[in-house]
Amino acid sequence: MAPRTIVKVDLNKPAWEQPNLHNRWHPDIPFAESIDEGETVKIECLDWTGGQIKNDDSAEDIKNVDLTRIHYLSGPFEIKGAEPGDVLVVEIQDVQPLENQPWGYSGIFAKENGGGFLDEHYPKAAKAVFDFEGIFCSSRHIPGVRFPGLIHPGIIGTAPSKEILAEWNRREGALVAENPHSTHVMAQLPNASYAFAGILADEKLSATVASEGARTIPGRPENGGNCDIKNLSRGSKVFLPVHVPGAKLSIGDLHFSQGDGEISFCGAIEMAGSITIKCKILKNGISDLAMKSPMYLPGPVEPHFSPSRYLTFEGFSVDESGKQHYLCTTTAYRQTCLRVIEYFRRFGYNDYQLYLLLSCAPIQGHVAGIVDIPNSCTTIGVPMDIFEFDVSPNGKAKIIDLGSCAFANS
Amino acid sequence: MAPRTIVKVDLNKPAWEQPNLHNRWHPDIPFAESIDEGETVKIECLDWTGGQIKNDDSAEDIKNVDLTRIHYLSGPFEIKGAEPGDVLVVEIQDVQPLENQPWGYSGIFAKENGGGFLDEHYPKAAKAVFDFEGIFCSSRHIPGVRFPGLIHPGIIGTAPSKEILAEWNRREGALVAENPHSTHVMAQLPNASYAFAGILADEKLSATVASEGARTIPGRPENGGNCDIKNLSRGSKVFLPVHVPGAKLSIGDLHFSQGDGEISFCGAIEMAGSITIKCKILKNGISDLAMKSPMYLPGPVEPHFSPSRYLTFEGFSVDESGKQHYLCTTTAYRQTCLRVIEYFRRFGYNDYQLYLLLSCAPIQGHVAGIVDIPNSCTTIGVPMDIFEFDVSPNGKAKIIDLGSCAFANS
Amino acid sequence: MAPRTIVKVDLNKPAWEQPNLHNRWHPDIPFAESIDEGETVKIECLDWTGGQIKNDDSAEDIKNVDLTRIHYLSGPFEIKGAEPGDVLVVEIQDVQPLENQPWGYSGIFAKENGGGFLDEHYPKAAKAVFDFEGIFCSSRHIPGVRFPGLIHPGIIGTAPSKEILAEWNRREGALVAENPHSTHVMAQLPNASYAFAGILADEKLSATVASEGARTIPGRPENGGNCDIKNLSRGSKVFLPVHVPGAKLSIGDLHFSQGDGEISFCGAIEMAGSITIKCKILKNGISDLAMKSPMYLPGPVEPHFSPSRYLTFEGFSVDESGKQHYLCTTTAYRQTCLRVIEYFRRFGYNDYQLYLLLSCAPIQGHVAGIVDIPNSCTTIGVPMDIFEFDVSPNGKAKIIDLGSCAFANS
Amino acid sequence: MAPRTIVKVDLNKPAWEQPNLHNRWHPDIPFAESIDEGETVKIECLDWTGGQIKNDDSAEDIKNVDLTRIHYLSGPFEIKGAEPGDVLVVEIQDVQPLENQPWGYSGIFAKENGGGFLDEHYPKAAKAVFDFEGIFCSSRHIPGVRFPGLIHPGIIGTAPSKEILAEWNRREGALVAENPHSTHVMAQLPNASYAFAGILADEKLSATVASEGARTIPGRPENGGNCDIKNLSRGSKVFLPVHVPGAKLSIGDLHFSQGDGEISFCGAIEMAGSITIKCKILKNGISDLAMKSPMYLPGPVEPHFSPSRYLTFEGFSVDESGKQHYLCTTTAYRQTCLRVIEYFRRFGYNDYQLYLLLSCAPIQGHVAGIVDIPNSCTTIGVPMDIFEFDVSPNGKAKIIDLGSCAFANS
Ligand SMILES: [Zn+2]
Ligand SMILES: [Zn+2]
Ligand SMILES: [Zn+2]
Ligand SMILES: [Zn+2]
Ligand SMILES: [Zn+2]
Ligand SMILES: [Zn+2]
Ligand SMILES: [Zn+2]
Ligand SMILES: [Zn+2]
Repeated sequence: MAPRTIVKVDLNKPAWEQPNLHNRWHPDIPFAESIDEGETVKIECLDWTGGQIKNDDSAEDIKNVDLTRIHYLSGPFEIKGAEPGDVLVVEIQDVQPLENQPWGYSGIFAKENGGGFLDEHYPKAAKAVFDFEGIFCSSRHIPGVRFPGLIHPGIIGTAPSKEILAEWNRREGALVAENPHSTHVMAQLPNASYAFAGILADEKLSATVASEGARTIPGRPENGGNCDIKNLSRGSKVFLPVHVPGAKLSIGDLHFSQGDGEISFCGAIEMAGSITIKCKILKNGISDLAMKSPMYLPGPVEPHFSPSRYLTFEGFSVDESGKQHYLCTTTAYRQTCLRVIEYFRRFGYNDYQLYLLLSCAPIQGHVAGIVDIPNSCTTIGVPMDIFEFDVSPNGKAKIIDLGSCAFANS
Repeated sequence: MAPRTIVKVDLNKPAWEQPNLHNRWHPDIPFAESIDEGETVKIECLDWTGGQIKNDDSAEDIKNVDLTRIHYLSGPFEIKGAEPGDVLVVEIQDVQPLENQPWGYSGIFAKENGGGFLDEHYPKAAKAVFDFEGIFCSSRHIPGVRFPGLIHPGIIGTAPSKEILAEWNRREGALVAENPHSTHVMAQLPNASYAFAGILADEKLSATVASEGARTIPGRPENGGNCDIKNLSRGSKVFLPVHVPGAKLSIGDLHFSQGDGEISFCGAIEMAGSITIKCKILKNGISDLAMKSPMYLPGPVEPHFSPSRYLTFEGFSVDESGKQHYLCTTTAYRQTCLRVIEYFRRFGYNDYQLYLLLSCAPIQGHVAGIVDIPNSCTTIGVPMDIFEFDVSPNGKAKIIDLGSCAFANS
Repeated sequence: MAPRTIVKVDLNKPAWEQPNLHNRWHPDIPFAESIDEGETVKIECLDWTGGQIKNDDSAEDIKNVDLTRIHYLSGPFEIKGAEPGDVLVVEIQDVQPLENQPWGYSGIFAKENGGGFLDEHYPKAAKAVFDFEGIFCSSRHIPGVRFPGLIHPGIIGTAPSKEILAEWNRREGALVAENPHSTHVMAQLPNASYAFAGILADEKLSATVASEGARTIPGRPENGGNCDIKNLSRGSKVFLPVHVPGAKLSIGDLHFSQGDGEISFCGAIEMAGSITIKCKILKNGISDLAMKSPMYLPGPVEPHFSPSRYLTFEGFSVDESGKQHYLCTTTAYRQTCLRVIEYFRRFGYNDYQLYLLLSCAPIQGHVAGIVDIPNSCTTIGVPMDIFEFDVSPNGKAKIIDLGSCAFANS
Repeated sequence: MAPRTIVKVDLNKPAWEQPNLHNRWHPDIPFAESIDEGETVKIECLDWTGGQIKNDDSAEDIKNVDLTRIHYLSGPFEIKGAEPGDVLVVEIQDVQPLENQPWGYSGIFAKENGGGFLDEHYPKAAKAVFDFEGIFCSSRHIPGVRFPGLIHPGIIGTAPSKEILAEWNRREGALVAENPHSTHVMAQLPNASYAFAGILADEKLSATVASEGARTIPGRPENGGNCDIKNLSRGSKVFLPVHVPGAKLSIGDLHFSQGDGEISFCGAIEMAGSITIKCKILKNGISDLAMKSPMYLPGPVEPHFSPSRYLTFEGFSVDESGKQHYLCTTTAYRQTCLRVIEYFRRFGYNDYQLYLLLSCAPIQGHVAGIVDIPNSCTTIGVPMDIFEFDVSPNGKAKIIDLGSCAFANS
């Protein structure tokens, strides 16, 4: 009567020893389980680091995170009857933390190990642990805020075909090749370290997947994947193109909450949990819907604040040094983030607390204007109702003792 | 008893012969009128082209628009008591079309004269005229849609100080200088053509403003200006930094509605109209609020659709040619726009109709993920309730006769 | 180009001397104007008392109001083509105050002249004048609150047929006849005093309407009328049964805002203003929609507060004296109103201010449970965001000087 | 780390043999468990009939329900430190069905056994079983509808003091005494049948509670109880007066969803489930908040439809026989219910399906006008988005095969 649970995770065992997990996109990874069209199933997922991050008051674990041991996705699942050319409609009926682990974390990676959107400004590792109380979360590391989770999977996607996989490796490889002197990592190319094709894969297949399998870091237009879309929450329907027989659906990287942009990269409230889904197949849907990238319908039960309670900040394509960029929306968004931090530090938060908060609270990040040359304008709306004190813009702020997030010792 | 109307426009007279208008940002443009703190005033505004666009079925006017004769803003207004360092809080109490001109337009500029966000794909001029029926609008050029306006000013800003103006000219000049071979116009530098310092300016001042005055095209972090933020609607409060005595507030470019991004550049439903405002001064607000760029609180009465009724499209930093860009949010947003067009053309719209619609209907454009290298992910949510037929993603679309937008003859 | 204005009112002339007004429901009142299906028209309306109430600081006018000189409705309008059996769909495209009269009032009638829902508790006359600032209103008589108007017509209805009119007179007459000793007025039967069949009616018709015409006080199931539904605001569509050729639509009693129940009877923010409508006819709609009473679709732009910001009070069918009533929802609603007043008087408001506020602010009044014998339970949700100070339930209230509403001198 | 579960129910054992349950309001019922202020606890609850209703296709169980064996509430709980005069603030952090029983039911009692709001029209027993899929529910007995649950406890309350209990018995007894010939049960007075004071109560106490204990059917102003408020969902905070040391909080009667009014009496989607709460004490809160009846703040995550998607029906104080009542809101609400049924039966539903649907879907029931003598006007808004086919009022309905709810055989 209860939905069939097709993946159960074990929080006390390495991810790579557990069944029904994997961490690469590849068409040959064996099916973990089969799902009937119309069947409701429940799927447990590890947190995205496979349990590397602890509920404590130090960010050592964040600083030293092993970024090759991540994204152990649940799946891939066979949706019976799905064929290339179809569209798979996945209804997300519910997402929940694991009952015996009612907490999650948000992290800022050190600039030299992972980094994030503001790493030029905030190079240190930091962490906030969040406790869940039903639909709400709060953190001893960022006191004074409490909000309902817009709970969702960061990653949901279908397997690429061989052709699509080859195209990914071509274009991402080209980006790396064209930027040999970049100070950033430009893209994560196939990498055998901790590559995991699932416990059903034999040695040969494992080696193939390790050498060819696409990394799970970026979302991609052809299959979705790590899109980190905060509104893909309870009740949503995701429309995914099918590229291989059975679709090979994978899910993971559950988030209790996230802000638009997930700016600190480990930026959502990351958690282990479960997701309940039901699948439907639209035969020939790719052509019938003219679909090149996934689309979705959000669910009807999002947290719900008055528009007039979103304090909204603006940013433009002029960077921190005063340099004018041409319609650069990424620059504009970074500026908008900095404006939020400058505003809220007046109340006594340190900048890393705010960088964390921007990453994981349900802030609304909009592209406001993208044609008024040379400035893109983006906005970030912060719901004032998530604060337990008055943060409205009335004048000088009264400074409060707001503690600190966790830092690494060294 | 009714609010004092401090600017009345004349739709039958050239903008540059009318009082209380101007079209440059410059600290020396004379005050048009004075406003007391706490006083409610009504201000009429021309449409952004100063009346160049007609209510007809040709896009000749759009094709041949004179883009030096635009943005005749109402103002600048003295807010009594405002001094540099203060923050001016402008409450937008209402925005309305002019009673005897209940229509507006949305346009796509020709690639060679103005262009827009998708001009590589859609180089022709096109136009849609919208009729207003109270809070709703509809267009004979885009049948099958009807929506309530999220009515707002595209431009609201304070005058720059001499120092800020110099900085604008420096940084935008540098962008142009650094890109001598660009095929796009990189920035609009000061240009004497049709520069208008207001009818109170003497010849000498007019010449100074013409040679130094900043163009009104871009929004800028220091004073707001042409931010084209769709949610700055009835009931909003804008917080603007004050850089000159009396603030010199200017307003114009009224929009009946706009989509996030205003992607066709002439992309909102542009209209002549009136705006009713009330001002408050936060003394020393720039420092007290740590303000570097404007911020705002939206009003409480936005149009209101269920989250589950926003059909939401995704786009990534992989361009039309399959080239991978590094966290380019502008590329991602362009891809998202294209996905919307591909979806809705299935119902019988032509692409220019959809480009227009995306620009002016209340679509929600979000920065979803901006850290998953190398792909930014942006989303566009299209409210399905604005369509008069069922546009939900159920399979092959039934093609309807949906007419056409207006094009230029030649 | 602008919509045709088919009624213009004159605020300086008695209502009964003006064209296109009337104040009874009767099938024979002559048409004021004709409207085409699909035509947008603008209609001005007097306030419901025909101008008896002044913008001053005394409630003498409320105390001495002449309740036979009310509800001078605009109309009746012929909708061309409407026939008995059809349904008339009226789209309310906009409602606005008159430009030169940006204020309205809310009143509490004296118990001996009009009364209201709480007149046993609050027998005195009182008044609050509200000033309009665009979409917002505030009152010098109830400081500390400010809210956006959910602007709407209190009265919209079609004319009854002769048979329906006879039935109204029968059943309302029977109620009066069966309660000869009631201390309340049970119903307002036809009454010749100030009956007004419009200036086009000749003497004989005027006499007929005076003797038979139904009073406009109650809303009625057959034609709508004075339903005082706060959500019938901009963008709504009302579906009205047609009982006479041409429908004979009448409109009036415009409200800037109202709370569910309109509990003080003169309880909305009453105003003179204009309404813009467009009509559509559903042929044979009464039968096709199985319609016995009007129905409507609200508009999409209501003021919009978070559900979590509605402080919600409960009331039950146990009256002030401790007497238990059987599933009496009216008693429960009265109790709920009293609970609101008791709560908010802690901040320094007097009870009459709160009675006025409950009547005119956008409070949500729900039937929560109507089957748990013997208690009905009703709730009233008060949006905390309409207050300029913190009214959340945290403990003892800090008393503020909140002035007073206007009272009568004597 | 997970919240402490303080009540676990056993679905295979009679309620009266299980610990921590009871079914009367009485100050002497022994504490089931103790809860610290600030502690998060999870409490399981039986469905309101203690398991009498089955997941099958017959309404025999509804017809023959034993209404003395109901409302086995979980509790009463001691909130440490709560004293008479305080206010207990209960935050409802989550409500969930039991994992292994993902279904509930809605019922219409037979007129001769329980009845309901429309029993004069619909005297037969009927039932609909609802299956839960994450946040959604649907029923094989009412096809074509599917909606997210606004999940909540029907009953939450504190124990009465001896004085309050005596007052309840006095006033409800008086109602019964004054109406000796009523055809309805006027009130449920103390009744020893299946009275259950909890397994900790000794024989003497059990007898006292059986003879004096207040029935749980009605909500009451002094302690809340069976208020059946649909919006008291996840994230709500209820403010309850404390009348006895430790507060003696009881909870039960969980609902997956309910419509305003819960009109069929067994009208919500009734279920067994769990509720997670956290308590806070406002010392001296009754006096400080001037509280006579409970109040609450709804949670921020309700299902969320556009106002323009609520098809809204009106009803007045004129009954089915054409008799005019004086401001009877109960009559008006009954009429409104009937209007909804008449409208939707056009699509092929039978009346009992619609009666069930009105009871359990998230319909909005408002008191629109309560002063326009002699008619109260109430409205019911039905969210059109819960239907899987188009139910908008465009003309004649196309009849669909919509099956049937379950009826009793005989
Ligand atoms: Zn992710
Ligand atoms: Zn993640
Ligand atoms: Zn603009
Ligand atoms: Zn514009
Ligand atoms: Zn009225
Ligand atoms: Zn009125
Ligand atoms: Zn109940
Ligand atoms: Zn129940």
